[in-house]
Amino acid sequence: SFPVHPSPSQSLPFPSQSVPVQSTAAQELQSLRLLQERPRVLHLQLHRPGKRNALDLRCWRELVQVFRDIAQDPECRAVVVSGAGAAFTAGIDLAELGSLLAALPAQDAARRAWALRRHIREFQESFSAMERVGTDPQTPKPAWGPLKSGVDLISACDIRFCSQDAYFQVKEVDMGLAADVGTLQRLPKIVGSQSLVNELAFTARIMRAPEALSCGLVSRVLPDKAALLEVALEVAEAIAARSPVAVQGTKVNLLYSRDRPVSEGLQHVATWNMAMLQTEDIPKSVQAALDKKGPEDVPFAKL
Amino acid sequence: SFPVHPSPSQSLPFPSQSVPVQSTAAQELQSLRLLQERPRVLHLQLHRPGKRNALDLRCWRELVQVFRDIAQDPECRAVVVSGAGAAFTAGIDLAELGSLLAALPAQDAARRAWALRRHIREFQESFSAMERVGTDPQTPKPAWGPLKSGVDLISACDIRFCSQDAYFQVKEVDMGLAADVGTLQRLPKIVGSQSLVNELAFTARIMRAPEALSCGLVSRVLPDKAALLEVALEVAEAIAARSPVAVQGTKVNLLYSRDRPVSEGLQHVATWNMAMLQTEDIPKSVQAALDKKGPEDVPFAKL
Amino acid sequence: SFPVHPSPSQSLPFPSQSVPVQSTAAQELQSLRLLQERPRVLHLQLHRPGKRNALDLRCWRELVQVFRDIAQDPECRAVVVSGAGAAFTAGIDLAELGSLLAALPAQDAARRAWALRRHIREFQESFSAMERVGTDPQTPKPAWGPLKSGVDLISACDIRFCSQDAYFQVKEVDMGLAADVGTLQRLPKIVGSQSLVNELAFTARIMRAPEALSCGLVSRVLPDKAALLEVALEVAEAIAARSPVAVQGTKVNLLYSRDRPVSEGLQHVATWNMAMLQTEDIPKSVQAALDKKGPEDVPFAKL
Amino acid sequence: SFPVHPSPSQSLPFPSQSVPVQSTAAQELQSLRLLQERPRVLHLQLHRPGKRNALDLRCWRELVQVFRDIAQDPECRAVVVSGAGAAFTAGIDLAELGSLLAALPAQDAARRAWALRRHIREFQESFSAMERVGTDPQTPKPAWGPLKSGVDLISACDIRFCSQDAYFQVKEVDMGLAADVGTLQRLPKIVGSQSLVNELAFTARIMRAPEALSCGLVSRVLPDKAALLEVALEVAEAIAARSPVAVQGTKVNLLYSRDRPVSEGLQHVATWNMAMLQTEDIPKSVQAALDKKGPEDVPFAKL
Amino acid sequence: SFPVHPSPSQSLPFPSQSVPVQSTAAQELQSLRLLQERPRVLHLQLHRPGKRNALDLRCWRELVQVFRDIAQDPECRAVVVSGAGAAFTAGIDLAELGSLLAALPAQDAARRAWALRRHIREFQESFSAMERVGTDPQTPKPAWGPLKSGVDLISACDIRFCSQDAYFQVKEVDMGLAADVGTLQRLPKIVGSQSLVNELAFTARIMRAPEALSCGLVSRVLPDKAALLEVALEVAEAIAARSPVAVQGTKVNLLYSRDRPVSEGLQHVATWNMAMLQTEDIPKSVQAALDKKGPEDVPFAKL
Amino acid sequence: SFPVHPSPSQSLPFPSQSVPVQSTAAQELQSLRLLQERPRVLHLQLHRPGKRNALDLRCWRELVQVFRDIAQDPECRAVVVSGAGAAFTAGIDLAELGSLLAALPAQDAARRAWALRRHIREFQESFSAMERVGTDPQTPKPAWGPLKSGVDLISACDIRFCSQDAYFQVKEVDMGLAADVGTLQRLPKIVGSQSLVNELAFTARIMRAPEALSCGLVSRVLPDKAALLEVALEVAEAIAARSPVAVQGTKVNLLYSRDRPVSEGLQHVATWNMAMLQTEDIPKSVQAALDKKGPEDVPFAKL
Repeated sequence: SFPVHPSPSQSLPFPSQSVPVQSTAAQELQSLRLLQERPRVLHLQLHRPGKRNALDLRCWRELVQVFRDIAQDPECRAVVVSGAGAAFTAGIDLAELGSLLAALPAQDAARRAWALRRHIREFQESFSAMERVGTDPQTPKPAWGPLKSGVDLISACDIRFCSQDAYFQVKEVDMGLAADVGTLQRLPKIVGSQSLVNELAFTARIMRAPEALSCGLVSRVLPDKAALLEVALEVAEAIAARSPVAVQGTKVNLLYSRDRPVSEGLQHVATWNMAMLQTEDIPKSVQAALDKKGPEDVPFAKL
Repeated sequence: SFPVHPSPSQSLPFPSQSVPVQSTAAQELQSLRLLQERPRVLHLQLHRPGKRNALDLRCWRELVQVFRDIAQDPECRAVVVSGAGAAFTAGIDLAELGSLLAALPAQDAARRAWALRRHIREFQESFSAMERVGTDPQTPKPAWGPLKSGVDLISACDIRFCSQDAYFQVKEVDMGLAADVGTLQRLPKIVGSQSLVNELAFTARIMRAPEALSCGLVSRVLPDKAALLEVALEVAEAIAARSPVAVQGTKVNLLYSRDRPVSEGLQHVATWNMAMLQTEDIPKSVQAALDKKGPEDVPFAKL
Repeated sequence: SFPVHPSPSQSLPFPSQSVPVQSTAAQELQSLRLLQERPRVLHLQLHRPGKRNALDLRCWRELVQVFRDIAQDPECRAVVVSGAGAAFTAGIDLAELGSLLAALPAQDAARRAWALRRHIREFQESFSAMERVGTDPQTPKPAWGPLKSGVDLISACDIRFCSQDAYFQVKEVDMGLAADVGTLQRLPKIVGSQSLVNELAFTARIMRAPEALSCGLVSRVLPDKAALLEVALEVAEAIAARSPVAVQGTKVNLLYSRDRPVSEGLQHVATWNMAMLQTEDIPKSVQAALDKKGPEDVPFAKL
Repeated sequence: SFPVHPSPSQSLPFPSQSVPVQSTAAQELQSLRLLQERPRVLHLQLHRPGKRNALDLRCWRELVQVFRDIAQDPECRAVVVSGAGAAFTAGIDLAELGSLLAALPAQDAARRAWALRRHIREFQESFSAMERVGTDPQTPKPAWGPLKSGVDLISACDIRFCSQDAYFQVKEVDMGLAADVGTLQRLPKIVGSQSLVNELAFTARIMRAPEALSCGLVSRVLPDKAALLEVALEVAEAIAARSPVAVQGTKVNLLYSRDRPVSEGLQHVATWNMAMLQTEDIPKSVQAALDKKGPEDVPFAKL
Repeated sequence: SFPVHPSPSQSLPFPSQSVPVQSTAAQELQSLRLLQERPRVLHLQLHRPGKRNALDLRCWRELVQVFRDIAQDPECRAVVVSGAGAAFTAGIDLAELGSLLAALPAQDAARRAWALRRHIREFQESFSAMERVGTDPQTPKPAWGPLKSGVDLISACDIRFCSQDAYFQVKEVDMGLAADVGTLQRLPKIVGSQSLVNELAFTARIMRAPEALSCGLVSRVLPDKAALLEVALEVAEAIAARSPVAVQGTKVNLLYSRDRPVSEGLQHVATWNMAMLQTEDIPKSVQAALDKKGPEDVPFAKL
Repeated sequence: SFPVHPSPSQSLPFPSQSVPVQSTAAQELQSLRLLQERPRVLHLQLHRPGKRNALDLRCWRELVQVFRDIAQDPECRAVVVSGAGAAFTAGIDLAELGSLLAALPAQDAARRAWALRRHIREFQESFSAMERVGTDPQTPKPAWGPLKSGVDLISACDIRFCSQDAYFQVKEVDMGLAADVGTLQRLPKIVGSQSLVNELAFTARIMRAPEALSCGLVSRVLPDKAALLEVALEVAEAIAARSPVAVQGTKVNLLYSRDRPVSEGLQHVATWNMAMLQTEDIPKSVQAALDKKGPEDVPFAKL
């Protein structure tokens, strides 16, 4: 039911039977495009061309909805996120933020606070839903290869590549607030220089691709956007070809362990693999390895 | 009441009315200098020239006192820390450490242990007070751009720059002890190579500026001390010009999130911004952005 | 009682009196070699030359036993781990894994799960025992300088060097499972790029020495295996020459702090040093420093 | 849109305008009844009379939906949960559990495991949604006074009363499984005797009302069901009359603090009250107290 | 320098030499009385008789100061806290709270929030200082036997007794706020019925002595105030007679373990006793036990 | 290989084939007796009659060994712990403690501290091994019903009963030390009155059976020792008759959840039951329930 736009290169029809019941048909994506350019790989494009893909309210809600649906879709095993046009995203839509603050209940500071908290938690949830895809109760699926700038959004992605001309900026301090949809929480756990994180967050200075690579924010820099998308899709395809029991189990445990002591993580993965090592994917994989085949030659059942 | 020395370049009188009541007037800083070279930026200099700025007991106590006062001073929004002369600091004063250990109660190992714990917690508190400036109950304010070697001390700073000739050393292992004022706790959360941290801590080998940059300990290397100070003051000035609601809220949440799971940090910043998004600094900042102005053009009220 | 093989260069007899009582004499190491090439430094070699040092069940159990014995041996203060021949290790022995899974109790999924958990926890314990050496109740001792590829194993080492031709691979995803002996827990806390960790874990792609250095997995790259071993032994010797009170206390507190908030780590090291600052190693070290001597000139008692 | 049944005593029409948009109108509650017997208090009745109110799948889902709607309804400030007829609930519906297990995917143990996890997390969510009402992003509202046996369900309630003839049983061990929807997690944090918790969980023995009172599981025992309901509604009414800023803030902080160190809880409530102490409810309440009035005499705005 | 009032029964002169240097002489306690009725035991009395010992700002600050001084005084090993006259304390002074809120900075909600947070953290610190006495860096000393109602305050005490006519109330909800100086954090960890805690906190109902005993809030109920004070002083004397190494080490570890997993607590006490088991107090105590003497017959050195 | 003494009532031969290989035959229990009085239930008796079952070094080590063996023995599903003769245990053997302290290395406080830590961790491990039985990697099995006084030891048991004349005492404070084998960590999580815990730990006062029951330390008080043992064995038998998948899964999750937030515990049990709900024990149990049979009528396979 999502408007899956045929991609110029190699588009497959989006498997409509996989769309869960609750995404009722009337909805139409407006700020996002969902393309299927490779088997088992979805390509999610921020699509507000005139606005440098700035995230307006509609966009936030569509993100939640799209990732909820993707999580339910056993056909999709990896998602690539990119921006339409030159920019990835200009971030939060300034004009909308202003009108949101203006619309708060006027009478009482505590009631205004309560309403604000509801908004913030909703925005946080957009990105957390993205981060969680493939790990939670009702979420069959993937891991992804996102693309370019927009620090809140990309820090909720699993893998980050960028093009040579990309730049990154934590702009909130220049708008008079502390960032509250994930940058201050995730960025320090993603990159290897706390001094740099502080500098970026306190001064809103721009960081360019080479610095992003050397600090570990992105793991590859590609010459231009075309190359970037090509490589991202290739990596996504490689992930999607692997056993979903292996890939999603890896993601569940990486996320679990990020926030806990090593001993806790070890205990969790042991409990996890009590069940998961009983999968047929292991003998299939071992046999393929003995036959000098790769995982892309093995047909794994959906998860 | 602190001896604020006029700086050669652009010194302003230190606003004596901001000094809180409890720093009674008789005190005179001896191991430290406090200069005001830019508006809203203080420059704290370790100042024991004959001793390569080694940290003696007086120095530790003056650090606590200075940072307690700075925390109370709403006029100051950023602090730059440097060392007088060529060195930043030679670290703990060897001779003093010896006499401190010699002065322990002789009779009973448990009472000696209790006295040692008191000393260690006091020393830890010097640097923790520095780290906490601008985040805690009675602390209105800032964030800072510190300067050169001295690993315990600098790892409690928010941002670290150094000059080309700087070097860093975790010396404790060569004195027969495990470092106990913060290096072993903070360094691994600051840099991106645990192998390197272990190597430095087990062997006391010297690390030079390029390695410090590539491992993320410092985020910039400048050619010499003059350039270093200039850039540090500029960054500090840039921070000081921004909304204190934004800067201090960012610091509070970065520190909070460093030590906790992402989900906890998200919850905290949502609770924080229940109140903080009601600030007038946001409409002021948004208006400035729409007017193509920067944060330095906006007069923000003190916090 | 271990078969300590004389090393070509500078081998000392392994001090048999230090072997604890419980490692009964009948045992013979088959997959490992234990060499003593420097005073107070042991060199542990994975030794299954025809199998590229793949880790079979025997090997896992010998690792636990060796590290348990080393932990009890007050003569040994550092361990270097390497692989015999060109490779470090090919990782888990594929054939064995298959037969282990085949040997599970057939009748009931829950009982199969319980048996699997037992195996996983046992394998985890091999590497955790290695990581813990020198920190736990009955473990007098060291810290080490390991060597080359094999990600699960090396991520439990303290310091990692590699040769120019080394490469690293997280292979589990290609075998249909989530890695469960420590990679997903330790790797993200070791290196400074979460994006890279995810990429390696989801795609099983190979990472070569320069990337391993720049992401912080290894802290030095040496031209070839001979140079690698030489440098590793030198660093190990430097560590072994230092006060064991200082080195082991440093390791205990680094490991403790890795998994906890800074405030917890500070409290722990203060409690630790209540006792440890009462050591004679500090006055000895301070005196040596005043005499312009290094720690290698001071005879420290065993711990 | 919920079928709110007029209660014999004092029923008010359920305010239909408060039902949020997403609970589309076609839904009809079948296993639950929602009554409004007092102003601002809803009474939720488990209602499967022939089945001793056993929880079937429909019931779980209706619970989630009802509590999601209640959370959005600013008119409701407290909920009383009870069972229709003599029993509160017989717990999980045995027959359904069997058919659920029978319907698992047959082919692969890992895929079966993944499906099981999804079910368990869904069931857990029913009760967690209940526990969270009034604390989370989009949840304006209350706290409640639940009623009688059914340990998983009642341990997610805030306050528990029972009648003299009530009994409680942790039955899972007699069905061959470890309880997995909350009993093992919440019960030990609710009552003051770990020995008793273990005994109940390992033996499935029945605990009667007096023991439930003395161990702290319930805080009051009433003579019979009529008295029980009367008192529960009174307490609920008393809660509902108080400032929602106070009641919901209290609940948010009690839940937050239950799972964290005291120092964390103190920090959270300080951040919370940064905004919430700015409420008009405090001057209103203080004035009422000075006027010797109670909170039920003060009209507080909705939250 | 504190006004130590001679007590009717058995007063000893307060050892003025033990008062630490920083409590400068001008201070006079006005809302508190400090009596020394037994050797090594101080008796702290809330003393605002006309106001039912309500806690005004002066009182909060004197509490912090008194406990800071007591912590420094090696002569004092236990503190009894009581209220002058019939009541223990009426809690926060209503009138003062109003004027404090009225005095907030008018211009900006964020700046008002910052000021509120400062006040709350200060108030929290009063009770936390009390709770910490004898555990922290510069605090030699005790443990105490407090007395009657006033839930925030008493939940920071170690031991609680009350008289038959005592009652307890969590009043904050009736003033329109969530309690923020410790009740919501500490009470659930102190008593064995979470249902009761919730009921008290949501309804502000009064709890009387028998219920307080049965839920574990107090551990003894005495017939009247005279008996209460007598027993409290006796218990305090018994505590004060014991080895301060044992008593304070016990308190440090109880507080540490309350907020952490059992495994963490075990590790902490092992590290703690590395030093503390080397005390002379153990051979002294063991010898006394062999001689059939009690701890009160052994002279232990101060800590 | 353990000396299993035939019990007067109903003794079965201890299944020697279940004794794991590593408990080599030469060992003879001296301070403990291991009896098998009911099917699948072992009865462990502290047995040093002349010494009131005081715990000497031999006893500690035999405890570790016995519980390690029990953990490996799939025939045993519950353990009852009691004391021979009138007393349960007099606790730590005073004379031995003295000689242990006397035997510490004389030369250096840090090395003495290291040796002390080793001893403490070893003692802690005795009780922790007991607590963990049935939960850890290589431990097939149970849960138990222990018996009478000796607070360190019994707080590591799952269920506690006592006779009418039992009394309990935390004696460490009277020996000049803070308890370090588990009392301060476990007791506050076991009973529902923190005030009482503190009183017991600070004053070493004796607590008798009725107070132990009302505070939740024990869950039943029996008239005399014969009745006590009879009831304990009955409860143990009831536990042993139930599905080991259910009982041990329950214990694993209760222990896991005790030390963690509710949300963590929920996640863990969901992961656990991914595998465990696939057991045949559930359909067997459900069928038995439908046939109106109890779990003792169902033959469950060993775990």
